[in-house]
Amino acid sequence: MHGELITVGNELLSGLVVNSNAAHIAHHLGLSGFLLRWVTVVGDREEDITTALVRGMERASFVLVTGGLGPTDDDRTSEAAARALGRPLRRDALSWDILTGHLKKRKMSMKPGIAKMADLPEGAQRIDHILPRAGYYIGDAAKPLFFLPGVPEEMADMLREFVLPTLKERFPERMTVRYRILRVFGLMESEIGQRLAGLEAEYPELSLGYLPRFPENRLTLTVHASTVDVADAILEKASQSVVGKLGLHVYGVEDDTLETVVGALLQERGYTLALAESCTGGLIANLITNVSGSSAYFDRSMVTYSAAAKIHHLFVPTELVSRYGVVSAEVAEAMVRGLQRESEATIALAVTGLAGPSGGTPQTPIGTVFLALICDKGFRLERFQLSGDRQRIKLAAAYIALDWLRRAIIDDSFFNGGQHRNA
Amino acid sequence: MHGELITVGNELLSGLVVNSNAAHIAHHLGLSGFLLRWVTVVGDREEDITTALVRGMERASFVLVTGGLGPTDDDRTSEAAARALGRPLRRDALSWDILTGHLKKRKMSMKPGIAKMADLPEGAQRIDHILPRAGYYIGDAAKPLFFLPGVPEEMADMLREFVLPTLKERFPERMTVRYRILRVFGLMESEIGQRLAGLEAEYPELSLGYLPRFPENRLTLTVHASTVDVADAILEKASQSVVGKLGLHVYGVEDDTLETVVGALLQERGYTLALAESCTGGLIANLITNVSGSSAYFDRSMVTYSAAAKIHHLFVPTELVSRYGVVSAEVAEAMVRGLQRESEATIALAVTGLAGPSGGTPQTPIGTVFLALICDKGFRLERFQLSGDRQRIKLAAAYIALDWLRRAIIDDSFFNGGQHRNA
Repeated sequence: MHGELITVGNELLSGLVVNSNAAHIAHHLGLSGFLLRWVTVVGDREEDITTALVRGMERASFVLVTGGLGPTDDDRTSEAAARALGRPLRRDALSWDILTGHLKKRKMSMKPGIAKMADLPEGAQRIDHILPRAGYYIGDAAKPLFFLPGVPEEMADMLREFVLPTLKERFPERMTVRYRILRVFGLMESEIGQRLAGLEAEYPELSLGYLPRFPENRLTLTVHASTVDVADAILEKASQSVVGKLGLHVYGVEDDTLETVVGALLQERGYTLALAESCTGGLIANLITNVSGSSAYFDRSMVTYSAAAKIHHLFVPTELVSRYGVVSAEVAEAMVRGLQRESEATIALAVTGLAGPSGGTPQTPIGTVFLALICDKGFRLERFQLSGDRQRIKLAAAYIALDWLRRAIIDDSFFNGGQHRNA
Repeated sequence: MHGELITVGNELLSGLVVNSNAAHIAHHLGLSGFLLRWVTVVGDREEDITTALVRGMERASFVLVTGGLGPTDDDRTSEAAARALGRPLRRDALSWDILTGHLKKRKMSMKPGIAKMADLPEGAQRIDHILPRAGYYIGDAAKPLFFLPGVPEEMADMLREFVLPTLKERFPERMTVRYRILRVFGLMESEIGQRLAGLEAEYPELSLGYLPRFPENRLTLTVHASTVDVADAILEKASQSVVGKLGLHVYGVEDDTLETVVGALLQERGYTLALAESCTGGLIANLITNVSGSSAYFDRSMVTYSAAAKIHHLFVPTELVSRYGVVSAEVAEAMVRGLQRESEATIALAVTGLAGPSGGTPQTPIGTVFLALICDKGFRLERFQLSGDRQRIKLAAAYIALDWLRRAIIDDSFFNGGQHRNA
């Protein structure tokens, strides 16, 4: 049992828009145990939509179509559907009532384009019974056909509220598929692969997917089984096994981010945070403050980009700057200690580095970053050599900083680490 | 003359990955005057790839395939191509040499999976003559066929260096299509549409595309014409007409961003910048410092999230905070004046606001944001009411701040504006 998705729209063929609807639909079908086998993208030509529909009905168990249901001349999906099914278009009374009611409220008059939206292929059943959103289901054709709007929010609503429940009713017997995403930081994809070698052999129902999203990795565990309970039990055991092999590198699941995990830890343990940022330029503070409720634990970030700002606000001695340069262990330590003097926050973290693309030297190449962290549990200072362009270096440095905050709180061995300990 | 793109990979059907390769290829083909009429997504099944290829060769003038060329068992594109063409796979000497040379350098031995990558359909011409990157061209089939790797960077290189030049040679006569993207800030899509009404009637060769990318809009001008010169002349005239109608809301073209435009202006005019950020949490500084060379003009950002930090670093009087609250015109003004006292930068900008989701009151609802800017040309303070979730409010506030910096430099009437002038 396999589905086909047909997405309609010239904008998808011109590359102006990435086909994120297709990814959304595929993902949510998968979570309910339905698999797509084909995705077809066509433009607004009626002939091409018709061909794609005929083909989809031949080869798939169900067909979803998005786009081409609007009021303009180039919205041709309903005409194509009528042709593909060999059925006439008929005025749908419910659609007509909703559209006229909507226009009346806005004191607008009916126009041919809008009237067209009430003309559906015979046998079509409108999905939304309240709002004037296009979308219908043809359940009495050889294969179930779903027509959804191309507007992502409207499509997602109808998929969740109508398409998935209807498919579950039409196809009650299907393999259960369960997913879990583990979020991993600090290991390359190949290292994760090595550590997890043999896991898929151990769990034949399991498949692992690697999704690098710089600078972290998302590891997807997919389990196919006969029932939800069996699948969930396998998923749970396999997840524990992964966490056993990757340790603290697994920082969260599903939609967790390093900043939400760090935020929850800071809040839970009653810590407050002050930052001194140079090369990350406010990025760490920006990530921290993306989390709702961060004002409870986030005090400030001193984005001291210029040397003058470091000297003035963080009391970095001028002679340290001239002797070692602003990108040095000495200045990183002075920054975090100056920050601690200024702020009453219980954790202070400073970062200084060289994001490039210019300014590198043999001693301090581009990508050199120093982190320093101090709290009641101890002090740590470390030099990193990062690679990539300016934005990747900033992002990697910010993620390492967030990971340090997490480990400073939960990892008892954190303050025994670090290559350059000056304290 | 129309092309078909076939993208291969289970990850595209499971929704784990958005098909950004398809958008990239479509966009770059379009820039060279080639249009895609179909995009087909199939999984790793050899049978489905074969069917898609046969169909593509029937209906399209050229076919591009991405993915399924790697060393693992589920990479089946070459087998499918051989079957679709009715040709055998043959060991390609150049591919074999490159792969063995690559393995030798790494002191690795040949494995069956890697050897398979040298087996190409008869008549295939390897694209990369140096690196061990998969990808080949079959120019002697009924329709030109391009097989590219699924890795986005490798695909993009080969598209640019090989596919587009080859297509131009094979199809010298084609309609010229020229694009331009204008970047617009501060107008809603519907407002842009109203201001530009009638423009497409004036220029029949022009079509306008609207691509909202919160909080800005990208306006695409596409011109179809017989020659590049004609198309470029129309594009130039139409662009000038758009700029005439949208004024300073057009801030850039193509890949410009507000932060690169602001950075260039600051540098060119010899200004330096200091920020005091509260609700934006370092986001403005982060955007500014994403631009290479920003250390030439960016001094610091005081991300004074807590009231204590505002009082301590920016000399905001405690009584102002208790009387008006931290989200107030009074505190915004005190912040920017305190910042100016601390920093020698020539432009100082402060922002304070409420990004939510909690903490709103009837007087100061969520989304209230105050901006204050001071420089040698004048002072401006204004209250904004933004909407959306926390991250959208931060982003909108940061973009308005960047737009203020731009206008403070180039717009002579900027310092006559503002609803709440206290200075």
